[in-house]
Amino acid sequence: MAPLDPDRLLPLEGRARDLARSLYEGVKDLPIISPHGHTDPRWYAEDAAFPDPSQLFVTPDHYVFRMLHSQGIALESLGVPRADGGEVETDGRAIWRIFAANAHLFRGTPSRLWLDHAFQQVLGLSTPITAATADETYDFIAEKLSQPEFRPRALYERFNIEVISTTDSALDDLRWHRMIRESGWKGRVVPAYRPDAVTDPDFAGFAASIAQLGEISGEDTTTWEGYLNAHRSRRAYFKTFGATSTDHGHPTARTEDLAPKDAAALYQKVIAGKASAEERDAFRGQMLTEMARMSCEDGLVMQIHPGSFRNHSDRVMGMFGRDKGFDIPTRTDYVRALRPLLNAVGHDPRLSVILFTLDETTLSRELAPLAGVYPCLKLGPAWWFFDSAEGMRRFREATTETAGFYNTVGFNDDTRAYLSIPARHDVARRVDCAYLATLCASGRLDEAEASEVAHDLTYRLVKQAYRL
Amino acid sequence: MAPLDPDRLLPLEGRARDLARSLYEGVKDLPIISPHGHTDPRWYAEDAAFPDPSQLFVTPDHYVFRMLHSQGIALESLGVPRADGGEVETDGRAIWRIFAANAHLFRGTPSRLWLDHAFQQVLGLSTPITAATADETYDFIAEKLSQPEFRPRALYERFNIEVISTTDSALDDLRWHRMIRESGWKGRVVPAYRPDAVTDPDFAGFAASIAQLGEISGEDTTTWEGYLNAHRSRRAYFKTFGATSTDHGHPTARTEDLAPKDAAALYQKVIAGKASAEERDAFRGQMLTEMARMSCEDGLVMQIHPGSFRNHSDRVMGMFGRDKGFDIPTRTDYVRALRPLLNAVGHDPRLSVILFTLDETTLSRELAPLAGVYPCLKLGPAWWFFDSAEGMRRFREATTETAGFYNTVGFNDDTRAYLSIPARHDVARRVDCAYLATLCASGRLDEAEASEVAHDLTYRLVKQAYRL
Amino acid sequence: MAPLDPDRLLPLEGRARDLARSLYEGVKDLPIISPHGHTDPRWYAEDAAFPDPSQLFVTPDHYVFRMLHSQGIALESLGVPRADGGEVETDGRAIWRIFAANAHLFRGTPSRLWLDHAFQQVLGLSTPITAATADETYDFIAEKLSQPEFRPRALYERFNIEVISTTDSALDDLRWHRMIRESGWKGRVVPAYRPDAVTDPDFAGFAASIAQLGEISGEDTTTWEGYLNAHRSRRAYFKTFGATSTDHGHPTARTEDLAPKDAAALYQKVIAGKASAEERDAFRGQMLTEMARMSCEDGLVMQIHPGSFRNHSDRVMGMFGRDKGFDIPTRTDYVRALRPLLNAVGHDPRLSVILFTLDETTLSRELAPLAGVYPCLKLGPAWWFFDSAEGMRRFREATTETAGFYNTVGFNDDTRAYLSIPARHDVARRVDCAYLATLCASGRLDEAEASEVAHDLTYRLVKQAYRL
Repeated sequence: MAPLDPDRLLPLEGRARDLARSLYEGVKDLPIISPHGHTDPRWYAEDAAFPDPSQLFVTPDHYVFRMLHSQGIALESLGVPRADGGEVETDGRAIWRIFAANAHLFRGTPSRLWLDHAFQQVLGLSTPITAATADETYDFIAEKLSQPEFRPRALYERFNIEVISTTDSALDDLRWHRMIRESGWKGRVVPAYRPDAVTDPDFAGFAASIAQLGEISGEDTTTWEGYLNAHRSRRAYFKTFGATSTDHGHPTARTEDLAPKDAAALYQKVIAGKASAEERDAFRGQMLTEMARMSCEDGLVMQIHPGSFRNHSDRVMGMFGRDKGFDIPTRTDYVRALRPLLNAVGHDPRLSVILFTLDETTLSRELAPLAGVYPCLKLGPAWWFFDSAEGMRRFREATTETAGFYNTVGFNDDTRAYLSIPARHDVARRVDCAYLATLCASGRLDEAEASEVAHDLTYRLVKQAYRL
Repeated sequence: MAPLDPDRLLPLEGRARDLARSLYEGVKDLPIISPHGHTDPRWYAEDAAFPDPSQLFVTPDHYVFRMLHSQGIALESLGVPRADGGEVETDGRAIWRIFAANAHLFRGTPSRLWLDHAFQQVLGLSTPITAATADETYDFIAEKLSQPEFRPRALYERFNIEVISTTDSALDDLRWHRMIRESGWKGRVVPAYRPDAVTDPDFAGFAASIAQLGEISGEDTTTWEGYLNAHRSRRAYFKTFGATSTDHGHPTARTEDLAPKDAAALYQKVIAGKASAEERDAFRGQMLTEMARMSCEDGLVMQIHPGSFRNHSDRVMGMFGRDKGFDIPTRTDYVRALRPLLNAVGHDPRLSVILFTLDETTLSRELAPLAGVYPCLKLGPAWWFFDSAEGMRRFREATTETAGFYNTVGFNDDTRAYLSIPARHDVARRVDCAYLATLCASGRLDEAEASEVAHDLTYRLVKQAYRL
Repeated sequence: MAPLDPDRLLPLEGRARDLARSLYEGVKDLPIISPHGHTDPRWYAEDAAFPDPSQLFVTPDHYVFRMLHSQGIALESLGVPRADGGEVETDGRAIWRIFAANAHLFRGTPSRLWLDHAFQQVLGLSTPITAATADETYDFIAEKLSQPEFRPRALYERFNIEVISTTDSALDDLRWHRMIRESGWKGRVVPAYRPDAVTDPDFAGFAASIAQLGEISGEDTTTWEGYLNAHRSRRAYFKTFGATSTDHGHPTARTEDLAPKDAAALYQKVIAGKASAEERDAFRGQMLTEMARMSCEDGLVMQIHPGSFRNHSDRVMGMFGRDKGFDIPTRTDYVRALRPLLNAVGHDPRLSVILFTLDETTLSRELAPLAGVYPCLKLGPAWWFFDSAEGMRRFREATTETAGFYNTVGFNDDTRAYLSIPARHDVARRVDCAYLATLCASGRLDEAEASEVAHDLTYRLVKQAYRL
C-alpha cells in the first residue's frame, strides 16, 4: 500500500501546514491516555496471542463488517456469530479473502486510516490488501501475531499507553482486573461502571439482572433504597480497581427528578414488569439523576452517551443479537432533557458530567452553550461515526467559539480494535493541531498558546476531566 | 460576461489544485448518464425549436423566478401562468428585460453558474446580461434557438448524453416515449414511474385518478387487490419503454407495514374520501412498502424523495397552482420512518432503494449510517436546493466517512432546464474531483484510487445503481 | 499581547488572500450602521465616563462571565448583582484579577477577538492580560476611561457610527432618547420597539405591565381593541424618536391568525391569568401576526428573534434573575410556525420581516428557501452564539446559494459591550470579504461584482432593509 503521508490530515499549504507540523511534533509522542474504551481486560490479564488476522481486524469490528454487509456480504460469511448458534464462517483465511477483495469500500473512511496505520506502523506490512494479496497479507499478519512482541502487554507498552479504561457491566466481578493487579504488571488498566443492564428496563434479562445485582451486593434490590444501595456498593467496588468514571448509554438524554416516594413507586412498577414504555423511559431518566447524586458523593465522573437507536433491524437482532452495526443515531434533545438533573444537582461543585452526542446539530446549538455555562458539564469528543477527520474538525468548529477548549476533555478512542488505538489517537492529535494551526494562521491565536492548548487537549485535560 | 474560469470549483492552491485538475481531465468528457430528471419527452419526440429565451430560461425555471419574486417582482410579469387563466406577461422580450435587470440577484447561487455555462458554452454568448444588454442578448439567444443545431435531439447528442430518464405520472400513456422509439432516433430516453397522484390521497383529483388508473390498466381499482394489480400493470408498461426506476415524492419518509386485511380496509376508507389526515398519511406510508414489494418482484429501483412542504403560500397556490417555488424543506426523520419498510423487505437481495433528503442534518446522523449497513439502501446525491457547490461538498463530507463512496449513486441533474444539463453535471464532476483531490493531498487516499473513484462516481455507479 | 494580525480571518493563501485584502480595503472604513443592539441610551444622553474596566468588560458581558462561570467561578465574585440584593464583589480590581488569571479560557472564542481588538485598537494597550499583569492592565484601562476621548459620544464619533439603534421596552418613556435629541448632539441614536413584556404572558409582571401600557397610552387595555390601539400608540411614539423597527424575542417562531372574536376572547383569558400554557403560547403567536399587520400600516420593519430557552437554571434565575448567560438555543421550526402570519399578510408589499435563528440547521433547510421566495422575508445575520468567524462563514455558505446576498440585511452587532462595536463590525466585514474572495478565486463571482457586494453587505443593504 502507499506509505502513510507524514503530513496527513494537516492543512494543505503554507504557513498553516508549517505551524501544524510544529504543533504535531510537540504532541505526537505524548503518552496515550485512554479514558473510555472497550478493550477486553482479559487480554491484559492473560496476555495471550491474538488468534488470527480476521478475528482481530474484521469479525469484531462493527465499522468493518457493517460496510462489507452494506454491499450485500452476509454477516455469516464474515464469521459474525449467530444468536442461535447456527453455522458461520470460522476460517480466518476465508474471511480475510472477502475483506481483501472489498478493501476499496473503505476509501475515504476513518477505518481506512486506522487500518493503514495499524498495518504499516504496528505490523510493518507494506503490501496493499487486495484480492490478489489476500493470502500473502494474511500469512504475514498471522506470523506477526504469533510473536511475543505482538501480545497485549507488549503492545500496551509499545503504544506508550499511560492508562486505559475498559467499560464493564455493573454485574461484572472484575476478575480480569483483579488478575491484572495481582500479576504485578505495571500497566494501568481501570474499569468504568456501566450499569445500563440494571438501569434500563428494556434490556434483555432486566429482572434477572436486578436479582443478580442484589446477590452480588448483598443489598435487597426488591426495594428502591436497597437498589440504590446496591449501586453505591458496586460503584465503591469498581473504585477499588481504580475506576474513576461511570458510563450511561441511554436512548435519549432524558432525565427526571421525581420525589423519592414517586421514584420508589416507579421502581416497584418497573421491577414488576408492569411499567409502560413511557414509565420505563422515565425510570431511565430518574436513574441518570440518581447516578449524578451518587457521583457527588463518590466522585466518579459521569459520562452520558445518548441518542442511538439500537438494533434497528429486527431480522439482524433476531439472528445475530445486539451490537451488529445496526445502531443508528437519532435526533437528540439536551436542553429540556437535562434540566431535571441540572436543577437537582447541576450546581454541586463535586459533580462532573461529560456529554456525548450522535447528533452533530446539537454541538453548536445545545451542547456548547450548556457546557459553556454550567460548571458541572464538559463536552466529550466526537463519538462513534464522528470519530473521524471531518467529524473531529466539525466538532472543534462547532464548539470552540462558545465553549472554548477548556470545557472539552481531549480524546476517547472508544474502541475494541486494539491495534487501532495508536492510529485513532494520532488522528485526533493531527486534527487538533490542524485546527489550532488554522486559528494561528488566521490571526485568532498565538503560536505559544496553540502549543499549550495542543498539549492540554492531548494530555492534561484528559487526566483532569477523568480524574486519572 | 467574464469568461468561465477553467479551474472553477477546484481547490484554490497547490497540490490539491493540480490533483483535482488531473482528476477532472479524466472525467470531464465522459458521457452524461441522467437517471432522474424532468425534461419533457415531447421535446425529443417532436424535436421542435425552443420557443424563445424567456420560455427556456426564466418562466419554467423555479430557481430563477422564485429569486426574482423574492425581491418583489410579480410572478405574472415573468409569464408564470395563472390557474384561473388570468392575464400574465406573454412577451418573451419583456420578461427577459426584467430578468436581465435583476441578474445581480443570482450572484453566489448555482443558477448563476448554470446560466453562465449555458450562455457561454452552449450558446456562445459573451455579452453580460444586464439591463443595458437585455435586447441584444435576447436577440442573440433567440437567433440561436432558431437554428437546427439547438433543437432537442441535436443538443442531446452534443451534450454527449448516453441515457436520460424523464419522470412520468402513473397515468401517463407515454405517447411521446412511444413516438421517440418509433422515430428510429438513437437517443435513449426512458420514463420513470411516479405514482404520487394515485398513492397520495391529498393530491388534487385523487378519486378521479384512481378511477382512471382502473380504466387504463383494466383492473378493478375499487378493491385493494385490484388497485395493487393496477400498479403492477402500469409498472410493467413503463418497463416496456425502458423504465428502470420508480420515484416517490412524499411529505415525509413514513412507511407502514399493515396486515393485508388492515391495508385493504384503509384503502376503502381512503378511496371513499373518509380517511382522516393521519389515515391518509398512513396510507402513503403503506404504499411505499407496497412499492418496495413490487420492486422486489419487477426489479425497478425505488427512489424516495421526502421532506418538502409543498405549496406553502395559500395565495400563490390559489392563483398559480402547484410547483411555483413555494415548496420549503422541512425536518425529516428516516430512522423510525423507514423501519416498517426495512423490517418487511429490507433484507431482500432484489431490493434497491435510493434515498434523498432536503434535511442536510440527516446525512451524517441517519442516512449515511443507514446506507452504510443496509444492503438495499443507497444515498441519492445532494438534491434540489443542495444541488450546488457547497451542498455537494457538504454531502461528501457528511456521508463518505460512514457510507463510503460505494453506497452512493453518482449525480442526478433533476432538471427541466435542458440547457443547464451539461453545466450541472460539470459542477458535480468538479466538486467530486475537488473532494477527492483534497483527500489525496491530506494523505487519505492514493491518486490511482482517486482516479478510479472519480470515474465510478461519474459513470459506473450511476449505471449500476439505476440498472441502466 | 501579540499584535492583531492585519490579515486575520482572511483566506490563508494565494489569490484568495490577495482578493480578500483588496475587498476589505474597500469596506473597512465605511461608517458603521448598527440597526440592532443593546447599548444604553443613557450613555449618549449623559456622556459620562465609564466607571471602571470590569464594569465595562466583565460584569455586564454575558459572553465573558458565562465562560468564567463554566469553570466554576462564582457569579458573585464577578460582581453580577443578586436578585435579593445579597452581597457580591464590588471591587473592580478584584474582578479584573479573576478575569486576567483566566484569560486563557477565551482562546478560540469571538470574545477573545473582540477583547484584543478593543484593548489594542480602542485603548492602545499592548500588555497581555494575565494574572501577572492584572493590576497594570487594570490601571492602564482605568486611566484611559477617565479621559474625555473615551466618553460615549467621543467614541461614537471615533467609531464612525452613522446610526445606532437601541432596544427599548414598549413601556419605556424614551427619556434618554429625548435628552439626546434635545442636547443638539449630532449622533443618531434611535429606539426599537420591543414589546415582549406586554405580548408575552409568561413575562414577570405581565398584568401590571398591561395596566401600565394602558396608562401610558391612554387606551383601555382591558379590551382587545384598546390593547391593540395601545400598541399602535406606542409604536407611533417610538417613531417620533426615529424608530424604524420592532423586535420580538419569543421562545418559538409560532404565529397564529385567529378570527378577531377568538383573538379577543383569548386576550381576556390571558389578562385574567386564566390561560393555559398552550393558550399563552398561542397568544404570543397571535401577537406576531398583529405586529405584522401594524407594520403594514406604520412601516416599522419587524425583527423576529426566536428559539432561546431562557433562564435554564432555576437556581441562577432565583439568585440572579434573567439574562445571566443561562439562555440556551433550541431546535426551532419556521416552516409551519410562520405560515399563519405569512398567509395573513405575507404578500403585502409594505411588510418587511427580518428572521433570525439560533438553530443553524434551519439556515439552509428553512430560512434561505423561505427568504428566497417570499418578498416580505429577509434573513438577519448570524446571531448571538453564532456572531463569530465560523458562525458567519457557515451562515454565508448555508444561505447564499438559495437566498442570494440580496435577501440578507448586513450585520447586527447586537451588543451592550460598547467598546466591542468596531471589533464586531470588523469581524463581519472580514468574514464577508473572505467569503466573497473565495467565490472569486473558485470562479463563482467576478471581482468587480464582489466589490459591489462587499459594499452592499456592509452598508447599503443594512440601510435599505432597516429603512434607515
